[in-house]
Amino acid sequence: MPGLIIAPRARIFHGHEWVYATEVKKSFGDPQPGDVITLKDFQDRSLGSAIYNPASQIVARRFSRRRQDLDAEFFLRRIQQAIELRQRLGIDVTLARLVWSESDGMPGLIVDRYGPHLVVQTLTLAMRQRLDLIVAALKELVSPETIILRNDSPVLKAEGIEQEITMVHGSNPGAFQVRANDLLFEIDLLDGQKTGLYLDQLQSHAEVAALAKGKRVLDCFTNQGGFALACAKAGAAKVTAVDISETACAAARRNAELNGLEIEVIVHNVFDFLKHAKPEYDLIILDPPSFTRNKKTLMDAMRGYKEIHLRSLKLLEKGGIISSFCCSHHASRDLFHANLVDASVDAKKSLRLLANHGQRLDHPVLLAIPETEYLKGFTAEVMAGR
Amino acid sequence: MPGLIIAPRARIFHGHEWVYATEVKKSFGDPQPGDVITLKDFQDRSLGSAIYNPASQIVARRFSRRRQDLDAEFFLRRIQQAIELRQRLGIDVTLARLVWSESDGMPGLIVDRYGPHLVVQTLTLAMRQRLDLIVAALKELVSPETIILRNDSPVLKAEGIEQEITMVHGSNPGAFQVRANDLLFEIDLLDGQKTGLYLDQLQSHAEVAALAKGKRVLDCFTNQGGFALACAKAGAAKVTAVDISETACAAARRNAELNGLEIEVIVHNVFDFLKHAKPEYDLIILDPPSFTRNKKTLMDAMRGYKEIHLRSLKLLEKGGIISSFCCSHHASRDLFHANLVDASVDAKKSLRLLANHGQRLDHPVLLAIPETEYLKGFTAEVMAGR
Repeated sequence: MPGLIIAPRARIFHGHEWVYATEVKKSFGDPQPGDVITLKDFQDRSLGSAIYNPASQIVARRFSRRRQDLDAEFFLRRIQQAIELRQRLGIDVTLARLVWSESDGMPGLIVDRYGPHLVVQTLTLAMRQRLDLIVAALKELVSPETIILRNDSPVLKAEGIEQEITMVHGSNPGAFQVRANDLLFEIDLLDGQKTGLYLDQLQSHAEVAALAKGKRVLDCFTNQGGFALACAKAGAAKVTAVDISETACAAARRNAELNGLEIEVIVHNVFDFLKHAKPEYDLIILDPPSFTRNKKTLMDAMRGYKEIHLRSLKLLEKGGIISSFCCSHHASRDLFHANLVDASVDAKKSLRLLANHGQRLDHPVLLAIPETEYLKGFTAEVMAGR
Repeated sequence: MPGLIIAPRARIFHGHEWVYATEVKKSFGDPQPGDVITLKDFQDRSLGSAIYNPASQIVARRFSRRRQDLDAEFFLRRIQQAIELRQRLGIDVTLARLVWSESDGMPGLIVDRYGPHLVVQTLTLAMRQRLDLIVAALKELVSPETIILRNDSPVLKAEGIEQEITMVHGSNPGAFQVRANDLLFEIDLLDGQKTGLYLDQLQSHAEVAALAKGKRVLDCFTNQGGFALACAKAGAAKVTAVDISETACAAARRNAELNGLEIEVIVHNVFDFLKHAKPEYDLIILDPPSFTRNKKTLMDAMRGYKEIHLRSLKLLEKGGIISSFCCSHHASRDLFHANLVDASVDAKKSLRLLANHGQRLDHPVLLAIPETEYLKGFTAEVMAGR
């Protein structure tokens, strides 16, 4: 088997599964793009099997510590293990991310299930080349009505993979409904702005909603209404949802109607909205889209957070609650925490933590791969008597 | 009101509530030990009210951003708020920490409730001086049968407060039973080794037990059997509990009997036990007492953790689960995380996170006071196919 000899002190010696181009000492056996290769240390000891793509900065991604091929049996076994993991963790596997890349030992493969429909992403060349094996395994394990390949992520470019959205099994299901947290959502897997429902936030929706009863809720960056509707369903006194996207707001309104819930949906820039809002909220939720895709823009993103944190805290009375989320792995939990504390100092308010949030367990975190932990959130209350 | 002028760049300007001796520019009005004082910045602007103790390294602890006295009305109001907070968060307030110091705006005051009995600690001079007001407020709000002052913490010395354990209301209840996580525990508030039940871990007991069904469980540092019994109750195939203390093991056995549960309890040094144990466990729990009380011994403590992490991981097969806890605020979550990752690298195993743990919400975290977040835990599984 062809492969790479890895330079000492590479991150793979510290538990990571990636090899950067700068960490390769030399290659042997003429590995080809998309191949399964062997990784070795400088003493010719095997480090396991990886997929190879010289076009990517991450030239190799290990998926096994042993010799292992990416064959039909591999995908059947690993996808089955991934589904069983979620079942063990109590996740409804009819509406879940069934496979998440490195975290399930299949780097670059993502499979989301929405009832009878599957959405597949192949974000590494090796996985794209083996799409047929993957589709066959999914048909055998899940018997879906349809499988959609939705390769539209910007990271595809870095891997030299063509963007494409196409049916690979069955026909376009059009718009349909799914039930999450006892709420109906309308989603459209082919034509929607993304899929319309963020699976990674379903747990957080429930956790925040558990605090919403009787409260006047402001849901900023509501997208299709996930937090807003969960709070309304949980008995919030009033729910206002804000998003700059008309399409998103229309979807949020449609979802509200679908569930017979009343929420106010406002198409507006959240920064502006918070600037001019009256202090008439008991719970403010901030779940912006990623302000940053890389380290360079991280400080800009943090300035944005500081602003919305400060404006929100100024709107809250004692006992008021702020719930803030950050979905970029570039911003660590500590950095995001410090940002919220800074804002509380400026607002002259003391915050007491009510809940830590993270991505739902169908997006598992690998302890040695920090990139797998991207979503973090804090719910905190302004202390009374302060 | 007498007070202190605080030097610029002190931590109180960054959201903290403490003033160290080194952060005082000067005092005015001759403040006396235990007094309520005013804090001011160098421009004579008030920073709020604090309690004062020149004998302590932490000379002042702010409890309000306004002018506020520690009178009967204050204790009634703040204790009531503390109880209501826990009720809102869904905690059974008949078995809970009702008041936790800074986190409830009463620095140094701790009140634990075990059914009809209260245990009070006054770890600051100001609170000790106002014990009568505190006891009166507790009688009015909770109507307890007994109130015990249990001032036996080593931190009392730093505050110059006498150690004492005494009844301040009612008579010694002796040994009695409480129900937590649907399990009975026998506790003795006056004569027990501590109180026999760690309230801060009750949530974690339940979280880990949720993964224990059918598993062979090893509970290291079991103390009085909290994790072991929760796992047995949840349907573990077999539970082995280890602790070096004979008293603790006797209590664990008694608690097992009380609940009609079968667990094996072994009096043994955990480090030794793990060294010689056979790989016959599916879930290993590590919940040691604090290995460190200060920054100096932190690295020793981390070496201890590295050893028990490595030994445990070597005992686990693929799919095996490790659940590890650290109750020292000196070890940050990141440091503790890195320790577990290092051990996994040495053990040549990849770990997938199943749960993050923290202290139960009756020990609330203040975002700007890192010392309030002391308990952290990870439950992770050894990835299959690796």
